[in-house]
Amino acid sequence: MSAQSIPYKTYLEESELPKNWYNVRADMKNKPAPLLNPGTHQPMTAEELGGVFCADLVAQELDNENRYIPIPQEIVDLYKMYRPSPLVRAYYLEKKLGTPAHIYYKFEGNNTSGSHKLNSAIAQAYYAKKQGLKGVTTETGAGQWGTALSMACSYFDLDCKVFMVKVSYEQKPFRREVMRVYGASVTPSPSMTTDIGKKILEAHPGTTGSLGCAISEAVEVAVKSEGYRYVLGSVLNQVLLHQSVIGLEAKAALDKLGVKPDVIIGCAGGGSNLGGLIAPFMGEKLRGEADYRIVAVEPASCPSFTRGVYAYDFCDTGMVCPLAKMYTLGSDFIPSANHAGGLRYHGMSPILSQLYDDGLMEAVSVEQTKVFEAAELFARVEGTLPAPESSHAIRAAIDEALKCKETGEEKNILFGLTGTGYFDMVAYEKFHEGEMSDYIPTDEELAKYRAMLPKM
Amino acid sequence: MSAQSIPYKTYLEESELPKNWYNVRADMKNKPAPLLNPGTHQPMTAEELGGVFCADLVAQELDNENRYIPIPQEIVDLYKMYRPSPLVRAYYLEKKLGTPAHIYYKFEGNNTSGSHKLNSAIAQAYYAKKQGLKGVTTETGAGQWGTALSMACSYFDLDCKVFMVKVSYEQKPFRREVMRVYGASVTPSPSMTTDIGKKILEAHPGTTGSLGCAISEAVEVAVKSEGYRYVLGSVLNQVLLHQSVIGLEAKAALDKLGVKPDVIIGCAGGGSNLGGLIAPFMGEKLRGEADYRIVAVEPASCPSFTRGVYAYDFCDTGMVCPLAKMYTLGSDFIPSANHAGGLRYHGMSPILSQLYDDGLMEAVSVEQTKVFEAAELFARVEGTLPAPESSHAIRAAIDEALKCKETGEEKNILFGLTGTGYFDMVAYEKFHEGEMSDYIPTDEELAKYRAMLPKM
Repeated sequence: MSAQSIPYKTYLEESELPKNWYNVRADMKNKPAPLLNPGTHQPMTAEELGGVFCADLVAQELDNENRYIPIPQEIVDLYKMYRPSPLVRAYYLEKKLGTPAHIYYKFEGNNTSGSHKLNSAIAQAYYAKKQGLKGVTTETGAGQWGTALSMACSYFDLDCKVFMVKVSYEQKPFRREVMRVYGASVTPSPSMTTDIGKKILEAHPGTTGSLGCAISEAVEVAVKSEGYRYVLGSVLNQVLLHQSVIGLEAKAALDKLGVKPDVIIGCAGGGSNLGGLIAPFMGEKLRGEADYRIVAVEPASCPSFTRGVYAYDFCDTGMVCPLAKMYTLGSDFIPSANHAGGLRYHGMSPILSQLYDDGLMEAVSVEQTKVFEAAELFARVEGTLPAPESSHAIRAAIDEALKCKETGEEKNILFGLTGTGYFDMVAYEKFHEGEMSDYIPTDEELAKYRAMLPKM
Repeated sequence: MSAQSIPYKTYLEESELPKNWYNVRADMKNKPAPLLNPGTHQPMTAEELGGVFCADLVAQELDNENRYIPIPQEIVDLYKMYRPSPLVRAYYLEKKLGTPAHIYYKFEGNNTSGSHKLNSAIAQAYYAKKQGLKGVTTETGAGQWGTALSMACSYFDLDCKVFMVKVSYEQKPFRREVMRVYGASVTPSPSMTTDIGKKILEAHPGTTGSLGCAISEAVEVAVKSEGYRYVLGSVLNQVLLHQSVIGLEAKAALDKLGVKPDVIIGCAGGGSNLGGLIAPFMGEKLRGEADYRIVAVEPASCPSFTRGVYAYDFCDTGMVCPLAKMYTLGSDFIPSANHAGGLRYHGMSPILSQLYDDGLMEAVSVEQTKVFEAAELFARVEGTLPAPESSHAIRAAIDEALKCKETGEEKNILFGLTGTGYFDMVAYEKFHEGEMSDYIPTDEELAKYRAMLPKM
């Protein structure tokens, strides 16, 4: 198919929606390291995990063998409310850059949560309902995951308790209000409603919270409340599994167009979007059927891949969660002010961590101001105002396209546009006012938190 | 085609995008009344209008004859960035209501302006660029139009000066910031930057502004600045012409599905969305080829159709614009606090006014709290958080569907979901806190403003 005949937006038919999630672990020679019990340092059993997570999700979490896992029809039907999402050819961005590269992006922002998070939220709410639960608890940073889960819970008539990192709660009152529309309750974290919250507030009065701390509170409430379980929007194997619909759709659309991407780029916080986008491509790479460059983009202020270590670490501040082996900056690391709230997590998905450690993917880190420059450029030519998180991928895609301009290469670049920035206008304002920080942690700082990693 | 086989979302192919706008005036027996010169009360000539508006747009404004007007390829290409928009079958809403009715909505919110406004903004910016202008001026209330025009101007590298109703400017700082991302300048209106603004501030110190007042300021700046023209996002014939893409796409999608709507519902402020949605259906009705019930929905607080009069009136507070014959509450009427900023205009599109006067469409008014109840219900089952404006149509569609439940009729209901409410969370908060006003103007109030209509 010639370039001219490629549409701006390629939509699959609803009948072409993936019927199975793709489990990349089945094709990994080196499996991701298991979650460990924080007390015994032994691999978590299904029974132990079942106290925190829904039963079916535990099974998915532990399943390293089945390559395809069927998507229940009820979930497929709810996916149809906003999926298939479009694969967009960024003609206007290419023209603006004057690059011979062909740029494609998979746009996951066309739903009220504003991001890809709904893909896993619907799945997790479905399994919670199937198990007969009353409700679920979770944490949210930037608010996309909390919004997505609120929406999913409203579809299934489940109660939804969200602990929102205090600084986000205060900076983004509208996010809270959106969750209320869907019937969720939202508590700023750390709060006085949990033991761990009280402990943290005692030790750090005036703290504005962190994802790790909100996770601890949400887990505590789930474990202590009859008929509740905890759900998480990133990092876990199950989440990457659900998010594989992004990559499966993107690949199906590119196959239709007869396009093979040379490089695939995604932003990486906990890894849910990147893991989902790259899944089927990585599968081909692992099976030796094709080769792709795969690039994770992270903020320079929170560089888990590029400056972290691959080690077992706590997932949360309260140390109530299992230990995960991941690229990490240490669970006590709190990044400096960065407006990409979804990329402020100290660790990285165990699946992606193993793939990165095996040299199957690359990582780059980018500074905040450069990210917003890319975001604004993108908005002005492609229309969509991107989320700060997604704009990390835009930045890297633009840099790749500019390299192609130098070399004259007609590379196919695919990146994930995970979401929209409509609730991030404070960040854009700071950018316009020149008040944006590009602080990067020093080696000494990173060493301090690294020294606090659990001794194994 | 059976109901079961109808997809949730029907997208046309990009190749099926309308190649012509449909000009409903060509099929109207009684043409809309012409715009009059406010001084002479004579029909505005093309030359007179050309001082305020772009030349090609003036031609479209005055064209009552040509049924189809070709859409320039450059506009079609930009439409492809966010069009075709989906026609959605509201399966989950139907189920929730327990209605035998089939509910469809044409969703225009999947772009950063958050509404259908981009359809006309792109066209108007295109013609401004074609004419070699430096830039355009406009007003915005809720902010959708200003955002859409900012986006369109950034595509064409045109300067964009937006006068934003002061109360909206203050309540919605994030809207202003979005416009800044696209390079527009935004001034709260009334301002001290124009003569009319100064005059209004002198007469009404502390006023929070109105659309009519912002229009006056924008027109003044356009007329006084070399290389600028004024553009408007609603009311005018040209705007309804551009918005006909909504109806043309909706009709093409319904035709594909083999579905004929029994009733077509849209919210009505200035009439741009409703006029666009109904255009091809009204055309069939006017030509005697088919019959449809067509329902305009307006806020009870600003009831131009249901409680206004059909008369020549000023379009703006400063009385610098041409007079238009329309259903109006009087140009001095300022509605009470209503969070559907896009529906607070005192008048109504001359085309729709004539059609309504000819008995070709109906109108209902709805109270604010009931609108937000419908909005929240819709969000919880259909996912998308709707704009307050659009929620007026949702309210009326739900009421129609509930009537069908009583009568057992399997009617096909089509409504326009013009946009998303992501920048309207203050309104949702007031709704949740029970602080929403349902004030309806008294007959005495309306009579007072009616008495101030220009004597013809």
